[in-house]
Amino acid sequence: MTKKPTIALDAMGGDHGPDVTVPAALDSLERNPDLSVILVGDESELKKRLPADGRFAGRLSIHHASERVEMDDSPAKVLRNKKDSSMRVALNLVRDGVADACVSAGNTGALMALARFVLKTLPGIDRPAIISAVPSRHGHTHMLDLGANVDCTAENLYQFAVMGYELVRALENLDRPRVGLLNIGEEEIKGNEQVKQAYKLLEDSYLNFIGYVEGDDIYLEEVDIVVADGFVGNISLKTSEGLAKMIGEALKQSFGRNLFTKLAGLAAMPVLSAFKKRFDPRQYNGASFVGLRGIVVKSHGNADRVALANAIRMAVIEVEKGVPMLIGQRIESIFADSQGDESKRKSA
Amino acid sequence: MTKKPTIALDAMGGDHGPDVTVPAALDSLERNPDLSVILVGDESELKKRLPADGRFAGRLSIHHASERVEMDDSPAKVLRNKKDSSMRVALNLVRDGVADACVSAGNTGALMALARFVLKTLPGIDRPAIISAVPSRHGHTHMLDLGANVDCTAENLYQFAVMGYELVRALENLDRPRVGLLNIGEEEIKGNEQVKQAYKLLEDSYLNFIGYVEGDDIYLEEVDIVVADGFVGNISLKTSEGLAKMIGEALKQSFGRNLFTKLAGLAAMPVLSAFKKRFDPRQYNGASFVGLRGIVVKSHGNADRVALANAIRMAVIEVEKGVPMLIGQRIESIFADSQGDESKRKSA
Repeated sequence: MTKKPTIALDAMGGDHGPDVTVPAALDSLERNPDLSVILVGDESELKKRLPADGRFAGRLSIHHASERVEMDDSPAKVLRNKKDSSMRVALNLVRDGVADACVSAGNTGALMALARFVLKTLPGIDRPAIISAVPSRHGHTHMLDLGANVDCTAENLYQFAVMGYELVRALENLDRPRVGLLNIGEEEIKGNEQVKQAYKLLEDSYLNFIGYVEGDDIYLEEVDIVVADGFVGNISLKTSEGLAKMIGEALKQSFGRNLFTKLAGLAAMPVLSAFKKRFDPRQYNGASFVGLRGIVVKSHGNADRVALANAIRMAVIEVEKGVPMLIGQRIESIFADSQGDESKRKSA
Repeated sequence: MTKKPTIALDAMGGDHGPDVTVPAALDSLERNPDLSVILVGDESELKKRLPADGRFAGRLSIHHASERVEMDDSPAKVLRNKKDSSMRVALNLVRDGVADACVSAGNTGALMALARFVLKTLPGIDRPAIISAVPSRHGHTHMLDLGANVDCTAENLYQFAVMGYELVRALENLDRPRVGLLNIGEEEIKGNEQVKQAYKLLEDSYLNFIGYVEGDDIYLEEVDIVVADGFVGNISLKTSEGLAKMIGEALKQSFGRNLFTKLAGLAAMPVLSAFKKRFDPRQYNGASFVGLRGIVVKSHGNADRVALANAIRMAVIEVEKGVPMLIGQRIESIFADSQGDESKRKSA
């Protein structure tokens, strides 16, 4: 029997706050009869959005928090002040075992800073990382780190790979997901020092390491997890978001130009809709923070109820599979004794 | 009167060699009556592809070279051996003033290594960089470095910005192109040390610096030049190539699924063609090597005649505008006396 999951939802987070978080919670409860949700935030604001018929009564509750983290609040400020923010209180509930996971569409920097402070990292983990999936030619590709760690050592990159591997095994039910290390192919001596050293660590590890991958491989190659430092990973992801947005806009414009193109668009509509659906970013909403003693899933700030419900669904799977425990065990078995113990690495 | 340009074309370079290089040269000569082209490579192979009617006689010549650089040759090996490769001989012609620019679709690493060795960097330039344009919401964006320099100091990034600025002014006839520094927005203390220091240098410079840009801004923001180190720039560009390719394939597949979708595709064809044309990568073929004492334009290895002709056209503009001289003068005026001289930087 898998655990019945309870999600602490930062109900004030994101661009739309309770207007999106509450409907997304209700949708999620509707779909998953095992789920419980704790809405964390301003009680009066939340109460008036709850269903009048009292359905989900036993599975939906409100936990009051008097403050909210704004999108432009600095993480340091949030950490020092705003001790009763919905974001922080949601994390407290996870720490205290009241909830199994926290989902927030709030400020990423603040969420990461609070999560590290409140939940702490797993033993042996130097730095938590952010991982998310993008659609790819063969299905989708998970990428980490997406911005939590700007400068990374080879050992950090190795830990990211391990964390990504354990998460993706759980999320995707894959036995041996393929891990690639993001690099460039143009230079004689490829990559920087950290990447070259990380290559060696990964090559000697228990992971299903397929070697270096380049930027285009994220979308074209059969790779399940792409590992990079947070600077590179973030820029690669954001580049993709920008390009996809521009192409989407241009496609729309092309069909909207005049009567003729509008008619053509009408004819092509069903095909274009299916195409759009395949790449719908809402499907991919939800970036997991890995390496913490608890489950935290970050939703896009501008997520709608469909997108946010996907982030909640992701958190639920992580609860059911016990992802932090899987990562913790693995990291312990690899790094516990000695960071240089090759035989351990291989047999871990 | 602008200079009549002579291009040394590495006629053996690229995936298709003379089958593409010769037709592209002929197209270019057809279009530009001021242009001369020297085809560098195997004389017998090239000769048989020349027009039988002897047109372009005074403007088209063959310069024999007995070797060719393969796509997987290591730059070090090419540098040591293959002294009579078409790539190297084409660069020699530029060095010796016989040609004004070299265009090659060959191995990027080898071309950069040879170009540095044969042509040398401009005085004051630490490292040459690779710059190219991508389509964007508002037109297009030039990005550098795209892979020549993996680890970069703040000063390197500053020099890239100056080189990109002078090139883009010339290529685009822009008075004050906007320069952005690629960074991430998620972290409390944004970016790594080099980026933060480069920010200060750029802020105090004569450049039209608009500050940090994120990955999505490459496509969505009004920025003309995006500066990054070669690792990040390459991965961002390759990520874009992979995503664009995947989307193109998926769109094609969507319309090819069955009779109905094919009919829809037929109706949408003119619109989709116009859309495709706008983002045709062949338009954007041609990456300039900047910071050298000569003009070198790298074409995609798999370029067809249309794409390669675009790379030649780019080289021609750089010749006409005297881009290396513009960059050299600027770098000299900024960096000649002291690298820390703020007043010079501002008034340069």
